[in-house]
Amino acid sequence: ERYFVRDQIEYADALKRVEAGDVIVLANGEWRDFDLVVTGQGRADALITVTSEDAGKVILTGQSNLRVGGQYILVKGLVFKDGYSPRGEVVSFRRSKTDQARNSRVTEVVIDNFSKPDRYESDYWVGIYGHNNRFDHNHMVGKTNKGVTLAVRLDSEESRENGHRIDHNYFGPRPVLGSNGGETLRIGTSRYSMYRSESIVENNIFDRTDGEVEIISSKSGGNIFRGNVFLKSRGTLTLRHGDDNVVERNVFMGGGKDYTGGIRVINRGQTIRDNYIEGMRGTAFSSALAIMNGVPNSPVNRYVEVEGATIKNNTIIDSRRIGFNVGADEERSAAPSNSTFANNLLGGIQGESFLEVYDDVSGISFAGNRVVEGGVADELSQFTQASIEMERAENGLLYPVDPEFAALGAPRDLKPVTLDQVGPAWYAKPGSGSVFGSSGTIVEVHPGEDTLVDAAMAAGDGDVLVLGTGEYISNRTIPLDKAITIKGAVEEGEDAPVVMFTRPTLIELREGGNLQLAGVVIDGALAPDSVGNSVFRTTTYPIKSNMQIEMDGVTVRGLVVNKSFNVLSLGKSSLADRVTIKNSSFADITGAVVSAAAETEDYGQYNVEYLEITGSSFASIGGPIANVYRGGRDESTFGPLVTFAGNAVAESGHAATNSLGASLNLHGVQTANITRNVVAGSAPIRIVHTVGTPKTSITDNQFAETPKFVLEELNFEGEHRALLSGNVFANEAGQ
Amino acid sequence: ERYFVRDQIEYADALKRVEAGDVIVLANGEWRDFDLVVTGQGRADALITVTSEDAGKVILTGQSNLRVGGQYILVKGLVFKDGYSPRGEVVSFRRSKTDQARNSRVTEVVIDNFSKPDRYESDYWVGIYGHNNRFDHNHMVGKTNKGVTLAVRLDSEESRENGHRIDHNYFGPRPVLGSNGGETLRIGTSRYSMYRSESIVENNIFDRTDGEVEIISSKSGGNIFRGNVFLKSRGTLTLRHGDDNVVERNVFMGGGKDYTGGIRVINRGQTIRDNYIEGMRGTAFSSALAIMNGVPNSPVNRYVEVEGATIKNNTIIDSRRIGFNVGADEERSAAPSNSTFANNLLGGIQGESFLEVYDDVSGISFAGNRVVEGGVADELSQFTQASIEMERAENGLLYPVDPEFAALGAPRDLKPVTLDQVGPAWYAKPGSGSVFGSSGTIVEVHPGEDTLVDAAMAAGDGDVLVLGTGEYISNRTIPLDKAITIKGAVEEGEDAPVVMFTRPTLIELREGGNLQLAGVVIDGALAPDSVGNSVFRTTTYPIKSNMQIEMDGVTVRGLVVNKSFNVLSLGKSSLADRVTIKNSSFADITGAVVSAAAETEDYGQYNVEYLEITGSSFASIGGPIANVYRGGRDESTFGPLVTFAGNAVAESGHAATNSLGASLNLHGVQTANITRNVVAGSAPIRIVHTVGTPKTSITDNQFAETPKFVLEELNFEGEHRALLSGNVFANEAGQ
Ligand SMILES: [Ca+2]
Ligand SMILES: [Ca+2]
Repeated sequence: ERYFVRDQIEYADALKRVEAGDVIVLANGEWRDFDLVVTGQGRADALITVTSEDAGKVILTGQSNLRVGGQYILVKGLVFKDGYSPRGEVVSFRRSKTDQARNSRVTEVVIDNFSKPDRYESDYWVGIYGHNNRFDHNHMVGKTNKGVTLAVRLDSEESRENGHRIDHNYFGPRPVLGSNGGETLRIGTSRYSMYRSESIVENNIFDRTDGEVEIISSKSGGNIFRGNVFLKSRGTLTLRHGDDNVVERNVFMGGGKDYTGGIRVINRGQTIRDNYIEGMRGTAFSSALAIMNGVPNSPVNRYVEVEGATIKNNTIIDSRRIGFNVGADEERSAAPSNSTFANNLLGGIQGESFLEVYDDVSGISFAGNRVVEGGVADELSQFTQASIEMERAENGLLYPVDPEFAALGAPRDLKPVTLDQVGPAWYAKPGSGSVFGSSGTIVEVHPGEDTLVDAAMAAGDGDVLVLGTGEYISNRTIPLDKAITIKGAVEEGEDAPVVMFTRPTLIELREGGNLQLAGVVIDGALAPDSVGNSVFRTTTYPIKSNMQIEMDGVTVRGLVVNKSFNVLSLGKSSLADRVTIKNSSFADITGAVVSAAAETEDYGQYNVEYLEITGSSFASIGGPIANVYRGGRDESTFGPLVTFAGNAVAESGHAATNSLGASLNLHGVQTANITRNVVAGSAPIRIVHTVGTPKTSITDNQFAETPKFVLEELNFEGEHRALLSGNVFANEAGQ
Repeated sequence: ERYFVRDQIEYADALKRVEAGDVIVLANGEWRDFDLVVTGQGRADALITVTSEDAGKVILTGQSNLRVGGQYILVKGLVFKDGYSPRGEVVSFRRSKTDQARNSRVTEVVIDNFSKPDRYESDYWVGIYGHNNRFDHNHMVGKTNKGVTLAVRLDSEESRENGHRIDHNYFGPRPVLGSNGGETLRIGTSRYSMYRSESIVENNIFDRTDGEVEIISSKSGGNIFRGNVFLKSRGTLTLRHGDDNVVERNVFMGGGKDYTGGIRVINRGQTIRDNYIEGMRGTAFSSALAIMNGVPNSPVNRYVEVEGATIKNNTIIDSRRIGFNVGADEERSAAPSNSTFANNLLGGIQGESFLEVYDDVSGISFAGNRVVEGGVADELSQFTQASIEMERAENGLLYPVDPEFAALGAPRDLKPVTLDQVGPAWYAKPGSGSVFGSSGTIVEVHPGEDTLVDAAMAAGDGDVLVLGTGEYISNRTIPLDKAITIKGAVEEGEDAPVVMFTRPTLIELREGGNLQLAGVVIDGALAPDSVGNSVFRTTTYPIKSNMQIEMDGVTVRGLVVNKSFNVLSLGKSSLADRVTIKNSSFADITGAVVSAAAETEDYGQYNVEYLEITGSSFASIGGPIANVYRGGRDESTFGPLVTFAGNAVAESGHAATNSLGASLNLHGVQTANITRNVVAGSAPIRIVHTVGTPKTSITDNQFAETPKFVLEELNFEGEHRALLSGNVFANEAGQ
């Protein structure tokens, strides 16, 4: 029987009658708020099928989701967008706890930006339960809220040794989450990690899946990860819990991007062979290859020691780090044992340390490995170290030219899966490109009341607004839900345009908002006398998208009408990918220049990934110039990262409302680089380290009449780990 | 000419052509996103009129506002609802800084819940500029965001000595804002308070205008407040800055509500006569009558001393407090001088102190005053003290029966303006009533998966859901945008219904959400393993409405799957009017029971007005049982108010995530009453006082193996001001 259904009522009727071999066709169009449940008893030779009238023309929107129960079910050709699931999953391979799918398949389904509005409200986009299911040729892009993109669950007996296949899917860009819970794929949990999952993950592409430190988190045994391609993705494929997994014939192309990593090995009986890894820039947990130390007799949720690992015939080239005994500390004292590391072709970065060893490697037998570039730890001096001529083969990967080395590194017959082989062919994959100026449209804006507001509201995404000499007064807050550039363009000798505003905020950043400013003066003289004004701030509605904010050659002055008047305030549940301030000048401001300290729950969340402030001047800034806060003990994120370099700071950090009494306050920042600044008559720089291995360097700064640094370690016993060098204090306060 | 216009383009055309004497009629219907600008040169005998086709049928929605410039303009009959102004005002008596209205009138305009979505984004609903304008018979109700409801502005020369009339308006319920900026009417600002405004505010009704401590804030000279009626409104008519104001023939009916007040007197030459004040319960700044001490040679933004005040023939009856020299301290040391206080009829509350004196009253000449009830300070012992038989006259006010007292107190001929005389007759005024159970509908809900979710989502406002014995498992979070009651109803001897949930949150409170729970068990056993779960929490979208949350006979247990699992979390930009927990039981919870600590900016904002926890038990609660935070130095609010009485607490406050190490953490709470609790093996109670005169009493509690209180004063020099008595510590830790 073939049922053609036009609405949810017709669908429910059809489902009641459906039998093995029947097909239900959903009519093209929008299906809003659709809790699509498919269940029934198909047979291997007579599936129950739910499909779209035309591929890609059935759109589930609003609060919609798919639940599959029963057996021998096939679901095909749906698109989820413009909404989010009201449940814990968008696509679930179970209808209820007791009706889990078996021998069923979901294929050519798209989940496009179907994220819960609040980034910290979690869900899975795909939850695979039951037995022997297949999830293939699907397209998932833009998950912005917390929770794994695809999870295989082992929390019932029937869902173990499950034989699921996850193949030919496109896992598209997943932006930095700014918190734990940004994994793209997870199999199992620590609680059930003693069980074998026996799932196969093959021939998928992971494209810019940057959610957090783990791209794939394998937390069960007996899984195979084969033939997957990772493109410019931060983090690693991590064998976090569970034994006897195989990682083979995968290709990782990091493209030199920060924090790109390959494979992290923990537990027993793991096989890592025939993989190709190039262009990685991660270190430590995010190395191209990290073989960890374990905890002796580890509890299930800690680190089981590496035992019986086979790591051979991998190519790891142009990568920053391979680490042995990663994570070694008092607790993680069990070195790898009974393991093999053989015939690997290894290349680091010229002049940099590459192969590092943090504890005992005597439990690993090494043979036939060759290092073609990069520094090698003494313990591994038996590795042959000499460069080899390499060339790129037809499959796009590098191989030694000389056939003598045929047995070294990844095999010649790798055929990395291509973008046109994953996901449904009918749904376009996202490109990349700069957000600013992308439309090519340039709009001239003339001085006057509300001319800038009107122009900004009328502008399209990627437009550039050009301002001439004169005053621009805004009586409304500009709601910014697109990328715009506001740029002063004046004749030589003329004054830069001056932007003023009579509301507490000039620009409110909303979903989709990105802002680039250059060559303008912002003056707070007309702002109302109320506490907590901010020239730029995020809306109090949650923002799913990560923002970019750039200021180049901007002057901000006279934010003094009341206390705590900030330049930029990033609020709760918002995350800026990047805030860049350069060649700019800030004077007479009662609050902060950048306030990124709204995530006060100490759950490891934060408001800015990269904050870069360079070549700028700050005079009489009341609050911290930058206030960045990441609290808690979570170690799942790379950020925040702060650069503060080549700036001049005077008389700043002294406001009574600046309760920490700091000119710069960095709490829980993972990487901070403070260098070549000249600071006078200001409050001290305050750096608080929380968990993990934060990297702080404060070098070559000059201080006058400014107290020395306030440095705190919250969890690390011993001296503060900041690297301090070349700093000069020409005052008594700092002695 | 009469222009009938159907859309914004037709309106703009008509406005271009309009001349003195013309009328523009807006067609009935919805006008969305309408920046309605009216300007032109009318004449006294030939107004320019903009009006509705039918009164009340022209609805401005979305982002709309009205700006009036020019002169001799009349605007009539509009309704603003379902939206908010994109500007700083909904109704503005200026088109731009240079085009302020003169001799113009806005009448029969309704502004109904037209508040900005974020409660801390400020605007005025009405801004009166220019000269000789009238604002009358308008209706304003439900302003939930920060900023004065109606402001008269004096920031340009032409707007001083302005002769504005504000009359016969209905200022309807304004909920507690939970921050400064909740005044209903303000004339001037401190900066221009040396100027005379000469505005007349008469025959308006202020009904439950509870925004903050000032209902009316007069900050200029020469104003007349006459014949207004204040109904159950918290706060006072305050002569905050500026001289020579007259307050006469007003009627204040407090109805015995908390914090109801009358008139607060500061500055020179004020006249307070012929007013009637009954049923007030405020004290200090919120007394029925507060005559303040001033600052010698006060700067304009502090307190100018009272000099030349005439206070006579007022009736103040059934009220808690009249204060002389209110606010006297080291800075405010100038007592009233050259003033008269005569022929006032005064009645306090039996057995309570009523007339209080805090400094020197020798500068006030007293004559003919009579106190009929309540305690009198020694300094005022010359007042005749004896009760008088009183009866309610036809005007609804109390007067002495004996004609001998005809010259005492408020005059007989007061005719308080009535609700049908204010606002437009065609727009209904809001009633009052309980939110819970108001629909009369009772819905039986059966145990099972998602039966409670489905019932709650289908329920109407005020419905009662009745649950029987059994398990109720929710796989979706219930979005609550109405008042519902969830009630267990079981036969004697049967078990109470058990509610469980598989999402991080059982119920998410949204705009309009109110929750009453009784007789149910909530068990966290099925909640996901993620940090920061909460059984109840507010949405991350801003909530305009104030919430009520009640639990009676509720058991909550087993919130242990991860750390920081709370029972109730009130998030940023949300305010609960009242959270009541009684006869309930909480055990094994890793987080807080009530977390009301999201307003961390120290702007004087907070998340709960009344928190009352009584007769309940708490065992193994990790975070503070209640965490209430109000930071900053603002003194404009009455709350938060916390009662914690008759509870049993065991082994609580010890979670590592409870960074303050307190079993109860009250920071900046204005009134705290902690009494008759039994506390064992728990972290200490922590009370931090910020500004003002917080009232904390901790009495008759028993502690075992619990450290003594942690008490801090942030701004007050000297001993902590908490009243401590009758507390017993049966342990060493507390010594
Ligand atoms: Ca993780
Ligand atoms: Ca106030």
